[in-house]
Amino acid sequence: MPTETESSRHVLVAADDLRALVSGIFAARGMRQGDAGAVADALVWANLRGIDSHGVSRVPRYLELFDRGESVPDAQPTVERPRAAIAIVDAHAAPGPVAMNRAVAEAISGARECGVGWASVRGTVHTGAIGYYTSQAADAGMAAVGVVAGMPNMAYAGARGAAVATSPLSVAVPAGRHQAVLLDMATAVMALGRIAQLKTAGRELPPGVAVTAAGDPTTDPALAAVPLPVGGPKGAGMSLVFEMLASGLAGNPIVPAYHSGDRRHRQNAFILAVDVSAFLDPGEFAAAVDDTVDAIKALPAATGVAEVLVPGERGHRSELERLASGIPLGPKVWRELTATASSLGVAAPAPAGA
Amino acid sequence: MPTETESSRHVLVAADDLRALVSGIFAARGMRQGDAGAVADALVWANLRGIDSHGVSRVPRYLELFDRGESVPDAQPTVERPRAAIAIVDAHAAPGPVAMNRAVAEAISGARECGVGWASVRGTVHTGAIGYYTSQAADAGMAAVGVVAGMPNMAYAGARGAAVATSPLSVAVPAGRHQAVLLDMATAVMALGRIAQLKTAGRELPPGVAVTAAGDPTTDPALAAVPLPVGGPKGAGMSLVFEMLASGLAGNPIVPAYHSGDRRHRQNAFILAVDVSAFLDPGEFAAAVDDTVDAIKALPAATGVAEVLVPGERGHRSELERLASGIPLGPKVWRELTATASSLGVAAPAPAGA
Repeated sequence: MPTETESSRHVLVAADDLRALVSGIFAARGMRQGDAGAVADALVWANLRGIDSHGVSRVPRYLELFDRGESVPDAQPTVERPRAAIAIVDAHAAPGPVAMNRAVAEAISGARECGVGWASVRGTVHTGAIGYYTSQAADAGMAAVGVVAGMPNMAYAGARGAAVATSPLSVAVPAGRHQAVLLDMATAVMALGRIAQLKTAGRELPPGVAVTAAGDPTTDPALAAVPLPVGGPKGAGMSLVFEMLASGLAGNPIVPAYHSGDRRHRQNAFILAVDVSAFLDPGEFAAAVDDTVDAIKALPAATGVAEVLVPGERGHRSELERLASGIPLGPKVWRELTATASSLGVAAPAPAGA
Repeated sequence: MPTETESSRHVLVAADDLRALVSGIFAARGMRQGDAGAVADALVWANLRGIDSHGVSRVPRYLELFDRGESVPDAQPTVERPRAAIAIVDAHAAPGPVAMNRAVAEAISGARECGVGWASVRGTVHTGAIGYYTSQAADAGMAAVGVVAGMPNMAYAGARGAAVATSPLSVAVPAGRHQAVLLDMATAVMALGRIAQLKTAGRELPPGVAVTAAGDPTTDPALAAVPLPVGGPKGAGMSLVFEMLASGLAGNPIVPAYHSGDRRHRQNAFILAVDVSAFLDPGEFAAAVDDTVDAIKALPAATGVAEVLVPGERGHRSELERLASGIPLGPKVWRELTATASSLGVAAPAPAGA
């Protein structure tokens, strides 16, 4: 969402228009048409779901990675399938959504054959909102787990400075009457984007969110240097084992390289798909998920809470609302996108409203 | 460890003696010899690792579950293998370690054949310290993920009362020079056993650990009724999707049944094994894990921290120390064990020290 000081100047852009604009930019920068559309769809999905920090505001970052050679616009991922249920997708520095979509397809195919399927992704950049990928698997009737390992930017319990990544975990579970349950969480207490918003606004951080460069707790946005892991050793430990599973199995460890001075941007990931229909009647499973959602939503709300929500519910509501009314973009994001489009000869749509 | 008021009266028991005592009790209560030994080994492992809340102090609880018919001492788990990489282990109310050991074997076998293997466990009781199972897989050269779903005993973000379980997550990663990295964490901020200790001692709880029956935050041990999930919606969301994966895929949902009044004790679980050697040379993987551990341990420690630790390191040190010096048991635990043994005609060892 636009930051508070900018809220009166945001623009509303229809999802289809935004997708076409972003896809046009990536195609003009050397991506194949289908791949450009894939990256645009992943970014716009994040905006639709209300995860604006992972949406089209990241377009300039992708272009910067192309400029530096850290990402390759027309790279074609290659796939090895050493055993029936596993695949290793080598991204060859293709943008995240290109490699991750392939991993989802491979994981689903492994799961159809063997019951579960695992796809590792080696050497991609910026995978975006990882729920995008697990929810694709849920749309195909699969439960799915997704993890991304990236550049260290979070504290490790007991250590100073950036030590491990805010590696996200996503779990998607297909339902029946309800939307798929979609957990998508960083291993940090507070997302980096939200901390940046509070810093920009000069507002005090809640306690327990970040530490100074020396590793001391702070609520001063000017001194906050490194976000803290959720639950101390729990979030730090999750991030560490996620790095070992995502990067280690892909043969591309990031954490030791980073601390030896190799700070080239890259990410690794894995997607696990579980074919529900291999375990039981999918209708029985869907009913169990629906009943579980109903039981949680029927719980008495705690003091001051209007409604008990399940993971993904807020994002789904945002999606419905933004599909209907357009996606609000801050003026800086919109200016950057339209200026980039113009410089590349890509037509920009008129925003739907102001 | 014995509580503070009892610390002067704890006994030290050799691990082998304790295993024999507990195994003897379970065998005398109708378990097959091998199964009795399996439960004893899982409980004593938790004591060795310093997780005393999941150790032999739980023996009376198992016997109570036998008495009530909620667990069946001589139940034999059955296994379906509907596709090559998955197994469904029906525990038929066998004690946790009996069903979980079988699941580990099935997951490893699936992983050897297909690269990854998943085993669901339906309808067991008290699985104990879940790191016991994932570390078995690590000993076999596998990375492993384990999750248990159980009876709701933790708050759900935004709701009052016990809503979901403190469902643990364990991830084990085999290393080379180092011990396997072993994450084993509840989805609650603080383990139930630790909260109980503070309550018994009448000591104030840290903020953010528990709420009252009405769902209001409290640090008063007398008012604390329900532990809080780690990271609010994050821990609550993890617990919820773990229930859907562990119980849903096993066709045995717990959360909706519990909230409809069915409070019969039971647990479901899953174990995922990943055959490292299917992805890359296991030596290369082990080197990456070792390098990652070294990089983390070489980080400068935060103020007041003596040493940066990786998951499982503290437990491994406890294991070495307790293997050498014996396992300290509080007088109440020791009295209960020896009285039970005596009533069943099982010989109790002399403790190694006082």
